[in-house]
Amino acid sequence: MTAADTAIRTIAPPDFAALEDAARRIAGLAVVTPLLESSLLNAALGGRLLVKAEPLQRTGSFKFRGAYNRISRLTAEERKRGVVAFSSGNHAQGVAAAAQIVGTPAVIVMPSDAPAIKVANTRAYGAEVVAYDRWRESREKIGRRITTERGAVLVPPYDDFHVIAGQGTVGLEIAAQARQLGVGLDAVLACASGGGLVAGIALAMERLAPTTQVYVCEPAGFDDHARSLAGGSRVSNPPGGNSICDALLSPSPGDITFAINSRLLRGGLVVSDDEVLKAMAVAFRDLKIVVEPGGAVGLAAVLSGKLPIEGRTIAVVCSGGNVDASTFARALATL
Amino acid sequence: MTAADTAIRTIAPPDFAALEDAARRIAGLAVVTPLLESSLLNAALGGRLLVKAEPLQRTGSFKFRGAYNRISRLTAEERKRGVVAFSSGNHAQGVAAAAQIVGTPAVIVMPSDAPAIKVANTRAYGAEVVAYDRWRESREKIGRRITTERGAVLVPPYDDFHVIAGQGTVGLEIAAQARQLGVGLDAVLACASGGGLVAGIALAMERLAPTTQVYVCEPAGFDDHARSLAGGSRVSNPPGGNSICDALLSPSPGDITFAINSRLLRGGLVVSDDEVLKAMAVAFRDLKIVVEPGGAVGLAAVLSGKLPIEGRTIAVVCSGGNVDASTFARALATL
Repeated sequence: MTAADTAIRTIAPPDFAALEDAARRIAGLAVVTPLLESSLLNAALGGRLLVKAEPLQRTGSFKFRGAYNRISRLTAEERKRGVVAFSSGNHAQGVAAAAQIVGTPAVIVMPSDAPAIKVANTRAYGAEVVAYDRWRESREKIGRRITTERGAVLVPPYDDFHVIAGQGTVGLEIAAQARQLGVGLDAVLACASGGGLVAGIALAMERLAPTTQVYVCEPAGFDDHARSLAGGSRVSNPPGGNSICDALLSPSPGDITFAINSRLLRGGLVVSDDEVLKAMAVAFRDLKIVVEPGGAVGLAAVLSGKLPIEGRTIAVVCSGGNVDASTFARALATL
Repeated sequence: MTAADTAIRTIAPPDFAALEDAARRIAGLAVVTPLLESSLLNAALGGRLLVKAEPLQRTGSFKFRGAYNRISRLTAEERKRGVVAFSSGNHAQGVAAAAQIVGTPAVIVMPSDAPAIKVANTRAYGAEVVAYDRWRESREKIGRRITTERGAVLVPPYDDFHVIAGQGTVGLEIAAQARQLGVGLDAVLACASGGGLVAGIALAMERLAPTTQVYVCEPAGFDDHARSLAGGSRVSNPPGGNSICDALLSPSPGDITFAINSRLLRGGLVVSDDEVLKAMAVAFRDLKIVVEPGGAVGLAAVLSGKLPIEGRTIAVVCSGGNVDASTFARALATL
């Protein structure tokens, strides 16, 4: 494949074969995370809730999948110059860890108010962190400047063929694990910031479980996907909103991701910060996993009754667990 | 097999075939829990630390394995009369959940100061809970009275052929998962209250990885296994001790378990409550799992340097995650 082919492919939506290719590429490096359940929680809900535990993924979130799928495809020449990414923290860690494995330098542009654990871990994976002010500076502009200066390759957080294909391996695994359990899934729920994870999952389900409904879940004030899906065209979040879901604050759906999601998703579900904290506490109590606020919106949507589960089987993706102790303590206090 | 055979077998140490038989019996009901690691933690330790995540097991601890392996073997007549167990909480939940699946009534004798989550869950699995005063009453006496009154079968927490064999499936899985990773294990660490888990693991390693050293880990003040191993005969803990490790307060090693452990274990490692809290915090931060105090002693032993890990590969069993929010908050405060 020539460099021009790569450029064309990275702005096209991936197909199912690209997901399978990503799965082969990440095998042995990414964790095949378990699909957990609690019989007590199931009894309380009157349905079957299966939780894809991506906090147990390498780097503590699903983001390693897409990042490694992209970065492992750099040419020898590109590897010398390195990669750049902007991220509130999980994509940052995924890119940093993937770059470390591949052996290429990484510069990550992160908001100065990102959770301390995400900044510290990104540095620990050997990346250079450049902080910016979320409210006054443009991370895209800073990222472009560094890309130009160093000739580095930008690894987009979601709007990229290989990144979406990598995140789609979550969907491949959910479908295989549900099959192994002998259950059909009525629905799969995943969060969205730019929409790469839920788009990848939708592509997997389209082929492997076409009757399964896929929903996107978002925090209140950042429900751009839900409103874009409802209206049929991309809309942005109003400025000035705030949420504890630091991983889900992108302003609008991506280009490629919305093309996929508008075709394949059933709709959007929106939850409050309080519902998210409660879901984190339930994950602590009944599933024994650490889930960060943004990672808990799908679980929160089910637990707060946004989608009926009685008599049904629903899989939710808990997408990450990189949360500071102080925020986790707030969640515990809801028990 | 006659009832007399069963009685004889249950007081003998299990052999390797019994572990394999247990694995077949629990398949599809127990979770094959993941062997987790953190590349950041490995880098900080200068070695490779693999964590067997039994908090993700059905009922939140390894105890379901042994309980189901025993209870699923009840005769039709025994099933009608039910089972009795005494336990501070994890064996209680394991027995209650196993009895619920098998369809036999369960009575659990629990200390009145057991963690609230353990009591609530035991009831939620459909068991009847009888509380007793840990300092003034004998749980064995209460258990025997109920066994006699109802003709129920006592399910011992550790000193039982099928219970030890069931817990040994943890060792079978660790050996298989290490093989899949392509690594040899220098050591495996597991906690002990009565010693069933570590005995079962030692039996698995004896066959599958005979050069791997198996260590038992305990909280200070309850190091009866360490002292018994060092002295060559069973000794008890001095009265009046206390520890946050509520799951590990048995007074002395079991009969059958000590026969196995004194033959196969390399030694005992002892940790403080503060080292346990710190280990729980590291499991939160780097592994994203919820570990209870007693479940974290093995991890604490490695993190506090009780066994050198530099340049080595060590597996530790985190045995359970049934911890109240207030205790977990204490662990978070150490970060």
